[in-house]
Amino acid sequence: MTKKNYLLVIVGYGGMGSYHAKLLKDNQNIEVVGTYDISEDRRTASLADGYKVYESLSAVLSDDIVDFVLIATPNDVHKEIAIAALNAGKDVICEKPVTIYSEELLEIMEAAKINDRAFIVHQNRRWDEDFLTMKKIYDEQIIGEVFHIESRVQGANGIPGDWRHLKEYGGGMLLDWGVHLLDQLLFMVDSKITSVFANLSYILGDEVDDGFQVFITFENGITSLIEVGTTNFIQLPRWYTKGTKGTAVINDWDINGKIVTQNLGEVEAPKPIKAGQGLTKTMAPPSEKAVSTSDLPKVEKTMESFYENVVSVVAGNAEPIVKNEEVLRVLRLMETIFKSAETNQVIKDFDLVPSKLN
Amino acid sequence: MTKKNYLLVIVGYGGMGSYHAKLLKDNQNIEVVGTYDISEDRRTASLADGYKVYESLSAVLSDDIVDFVLIATPNDVHKEIAIAALNAGKDVICEKPVTIYSEELLEIMEAAKINDRAFIVHQNRRWDEDFLTMKKIYDEQIIGEVFHIESRVQGANGIPGDWRHLKEYGGGMLLDWGVHLLDQLLFMVDSKITSVFANLSYILGDEVDDGFQVFITFENGITSLIEVGTTNFIQLPRWYTKGTKGTAVINDWDINGKIVTQNLGEVEAPKPIKAGQGLTKTMAPPSEKAVSTSDLPKVEKTMESFYENVVSVVAGNAEPIVKNEEVLRVLRLMETIFKSAETNQVIKDFDLVPSKLN
Repeated sequence: MTKKNYLLVIVGYGGMGSYHAKLLKDNQNIEVVGTYDISEDRRTASLADGYKVYESLSAVLSDDIVDFVLIATPNDVHKEIAIAALNAGKDVICEKPVTIYSEELLEIMEAAKINDRAFIVHQNRRWDEDFLTMKKIYDEQIIGEVFHIESRVQGANGIPGDWRHLKEYGGGMLLDWGVHLLDQLLFMVDSKITSVFANLSYILGDEVDDGFQVFITFENGITSLIEVGTTNFIQLPRWYTKGTKGTAVINDWDINGKIVTQNLGEVEAPKPIKAGQGLTKTMAPPSEKAVSTSDLPKVEKTMESFYENVVSVVAGNAEPIVKNEEVLRVLRLMETIFKSAETNQVIKDFDLVPSKLN
Repeated sequence: MTKKNYLLVIVGYGGMGSYHAKLLKDNQNIEVVGTYDISEDRRTASLADGYKVYESLSAVLSDDIVDFVLIATPNDVHKEIAIAALNAGKDVICEKPVTIYSEELLEIMEAAKINDRAFIVHQNRRWDEDFLTMKKIYDEQIIGEVFHIESRVQGANGIPGDWRHLKEYGGGMLLDWGVHLLDQLLFMVDSKITSVFANLSYILGDEVDDGFQVFITFENGITSLIEVGTTNFIQLPRWYTKGTKGTAVINDWDINGKIVTQNLGEVEAPKPIKAGQGLTKTMAPPSEKAVSTSDLPKVEKTMESFYENVVSVVAGNAEPIVKNEEVLRVLRLMETIFKSAETNQVIKDFDLVPSKLN
């Protein structure tokens, strides 16, 4: 590295913008030097937090000391800011969803290529411990070959904030949380998507979805149910995954959960149980010796953190962990999900961008 | 009633047949007098249990003392036995699924009508306490207006028994357990079905499904996810239902579970929580005063038991609780589910039989 420090300006100093500022406080390589926000309140907050306030986006972009522009605005203006920053020779970090429409990302990717600058989307939930735990179970076949994955986040607080209620700003829960769960799924399952069925929920009366259930099938036979809810006063487990040798559940963000696997060899048949008005052997618990319960595996650090990777990428030392082709694929999947929900049809005849995941 | 006792013969003295015999042991009105089974072992069991063994179906049907024929054979021969019994002037009780194809049930219904005999399907799980508890929550709007219902049974023992692995006998989990969950759903939700999406699972390598997930939408806006699994080493809750004012969960056959509802009035906004690599207000628990947790309601007996109703029906004192039109509707729904799964399409253009439920 020729420089010790990269200087970064945050554009959009709202909830996520200030979260990044906190994240970067102790970073060895990147220093937040200022912010730009259209809201007077947020400018005041920025000054109070010790960050210079830029008067305009062009003031940011024409400031030669600035290496990175971090975009944490509402989703509808990501594209114009990103392209302007790339054209001004800045490296760009962008909040998710990167854009509302996949065509916009293609334009950004083109601008990044022309200007030979980095454009990296903050798909930070690839580093979530719950996800990495399930990915380890998947990769290491701890429950045999995984054939079904359910991934849910359920809240009871409705759609958050202000612009997230509005379509024109790219609001709605599919774009807000769905983008994470789908990104995780496609980062984990290395297979082509063959079909998508989706139901979006509009129970809260917003113009954007307040949640969804999506059923995805992959060419390798894996099926997946992805769900986001904001009207769930009781939560189902965060992850529920079935493999040929057992089942793994992660209940929550604190990684409570367990693995139950089948024991090989001679085991007693299950004893029928009384269930409601009938007997059932099918739904009876397996006999005691037929299964083993174990703790979830611990994940160890196997990849650079998001910001470590950002620095490695601009230093030319690594490929981005969050590849734009992958982000594009997720955007196209979300477009397919919207199409499925709008038409109430299974969508099969769509093409996702070729990537290493396909 | 002119007679004190109705005499009943069980045709097919396997698991379910002998279960009925036990059920009827203390019945005030119906007495099991004999059985007919093609298996030598089961004849021996019948004698050991104290029931006369008939040598043939026609011996049963020509025995004038027999009022009821109860059919608990594999599913593929329900129709021929039912029609023969009805034509012989017997009232008939039949195990579920009543037939494999809905056309067969239409033939049986015609035979029942011509002979003026009762034909009643043993959809016993309409009396399951877990179902009645959720139905009470639904009917009494304990969580407000219900808009989403998830009903699951998950086992880890694979497909049970012998013939249930084979298509020609009407095997598979949709016909075995699905018929119960769908019957319950349609008995609870009084609305027309508008679309069906289904995925059947064949992970165990049988020619019949070892489980399924079905997504159903109703004209009144209710959505439902119905699931049966036999490869689930950990179980998700039996019922998970969302209403406009809260969520209700029934975990298991012992009716463990809870209700969480939203409190009206001014409540504190939820505090953001750290969740994985990010902060979330959306998925944070509501503030303490924003919700109330309560126990599941207790169900009281509001309808006759299955066999009480059978006796009332043949005595001319009641309508059947399990109406053949309802059973027909469930069969047609299952045919639609098979069609959806085979074609991987959402099925919308199908007609269910008109019934009081529509």
